[in-house]
Amino acid sequence: MLPIHEYQEHFLQYLENQKINKEPKNLYEPIDYILGLGGKRMRPVLTLMAAEVFDADYTKALPAATAVEVFHNFSLVHDDIMDDAPLRRGQQTVHEKWNLNAGILSGDAMLILAYQYFEKYEPAVFRDLAKLFSKTAIEVCEGQQWDVDFETRTDVTIPEYLKMIEYKTAVLVAAAMKMGAIIADTSKENADLIYNFGLNLGIAFQLQDDYLDAFGDPETFGKQVGGDIIENKKTYLYLKALEFSTPEKALELEQLFSLQLDENAEKIETAKTIFNESGASKATQEAIESYTFKAFETLEKMDIDFSKKEVLKAFGENLMGRKV
Amino acid sequence: MLPIHEYQEHFLQYLENQKINKEPKNLYEPIDYILGLGGKRMRPVLTLMAAEVFDADYTKALPAATAVEVFHNFSLVHDDIMDDAPLRRGQQTVHEKWNLNAGILSGDAMLILAYQYFEKYEPAVFRDLAKLFSKTAIEVCEGQQWDVDFETRTDVTIPEYLKMIEYKTAVLVAAAMKMGAIIADTSKENADLIYNFGLNLGIAFQLQDDYLDAFGDPETFGKQVGGDIIENKKTYLYLKALEFSTPEKALELEQLFSLQLDENAEKIETAKTIFNESGASKATQEAIESYTFKAFETLEKMDIDFSKKEVLKAFGENLMGRKV
Repeated sequence: MLPIHEYQEHFLQYLENQKINKEPKNLYEPIDYILGLGGKRMRPVLTLMAAEVFDADYTKALPAATAVEVFHNFSLVHDDIMDDAPLRRGQQTVHEKWNLNAGILSGDAMLILAYQYFEKYEPAVFRDLAKLFSKTAIEVCEGQQWDVDFETRTDVTIPEYLKMIEYKTAVLVAAAMKMGAIIADTSKENADLIYNFGLNLGIAFQLQDDYLDAFGDPETFGKQVGGDIIENKKTYLYLKALEFSTPEKALELEQLFSLQLDENAEKIETAKTIFNESGASKATQEAIESYTFKAFETLEKMDIDFSKKEVLKAFGENLMGRKV
Repeated sequence: MLPIHEYQEHFLQYLENQKINKEPKNLYEPIDYILGLGGKRMRPVLTLMAAEVFDADYTKALPAATAVEVFHNFSLVHDDIMDDAPLRRGQQTVHEKWNLNAGILSGDAMLILAYQYFEKYEPAVFRDLAKLFSKTAIEVCEGQQWDVDFETRTDVTIPEYLKMIEYKTAVLVAAAMKMGAIIADTSKENADLIYNFGLNLGIAFQLQDDYLDAFGDPETFGKQVGGDIIENKKTYLYLKALEFSTPEKALELEQLFSLQLDENAEKIETAKTIFNESGASKATQEAIESYTFKAFETLEKMDIDFSKKEVLKAFGENLMGRKV
């Protein structure tokens, strides 16, 4: 296996060659634009790594890895419209740089282009990949819908929240890895185990994102620290704080999370204090550890060489040790 | 083979059983809603008919027919957002009845659900269907983008317009029929011929739609007669009228098609007079006949029983003889 940054580089080289220099420009330019905005390329790298974990050459997995990345970017383009987001990775979002129509239509085209990458595989593999992809993509839509629904609900439970981040974020990480397993033609057991590894790691990853959004280092976090608090997002931290607080404190938190302010420094500080004092911060960190541990446990059961387990574990530890 | 209305009935029965009674409601209710709004179900019926033309039972083609109908409705939901349309088949559009987010997200889900219908087939057929579907879906997106682009362009040519309607409308009719051929496992020649039959019939159908929009009988047309003129749509009629007119008349027409009026009766009458006097109406009718004739010519080359050719021809004649 290669070091992670080499999978990244190989993937980026492959992606570079996928640019669509085709008419109509207004359909294809937004696609090249969003795919060129960068990001960690975590999902496609996981597809390549998973293929090599199960003894296939990573090059075989490049088209599927690209499908995963194209789909992920499709979901970003449409989500940015729904969230009315002006910026993505520090650059203008597609619907801002072009317009609403371009955002909708180039997103649609990306979803279809993602499927077309599976055509590089022989029929049985094609069907397995496309089937997993469709199931995953539907779940991502459901997760996004729950997320939208939760914005206007005040009775969201922790299990509901966990289901939402599982669908919106984790299933794609899981499917990205299982695709590598399918391409490598490993056993069904291994394929299911790596799916579970990715699923638990994906949930841990999203919970950590919630945590870092409030408690990350402003120097290294990249995004605005406290963004979720400003936007009154009911994250795991918030829901746990409600659960652990006295009725009075809970009411204070709910009221705090109904404010739309111009100046948010004080709101952020108050929320963070409640998160800490209620024990929500600690509970979130424990949940992150618990999902990461579950992921590593799944690894143990996998029928692969010890050294490969170590590589996956290192990837997980690296991901969970991130400060950004 | 069955009478057309029986294919319609069988398809509607099947569709009725596809209702998605699942959470999140805000994702799935819009899908059931738009699929229940009616319409002629021309595309899925063509899939069923094509399967029987090539000696397969129509029941085998029901999942693919549903994929085609679900995709068609996906495109309607997203197009209605782009066109800012309040009504579809006399009912509220999805983004009007729910909201923009519901329109985008339930549309996305329908595109994915369409692919899932192909999972009912064995791997080789699955791949052939999904491949044809992806190619077609991308072309529909391109056609829609051209259509959007043409709204703000004043130099659209007739070949460009024909390409646009081919992609936006005709390729799906063509693919619907070819899917029936794939499911019936007929020869590649037959599958390509029925694709061409559908393609030419689809172009004729759209040109006739342009024609009827101006010259249809208000009693039977269903839509508002003159709608394209009111919206300054550069249809085949308009482009042919520009081509055939003196520079003065052409300028008059261009100016007429830059107006946004509250009262349109006079504008519609003037436009129709120019369409008629320039010879554009006649040219449009000739083009409709020519594409219909091309479709029937393709039938001749097909290696199927004479009686089946007659059924397809009758369908085409029925479609082209429509006054609505």
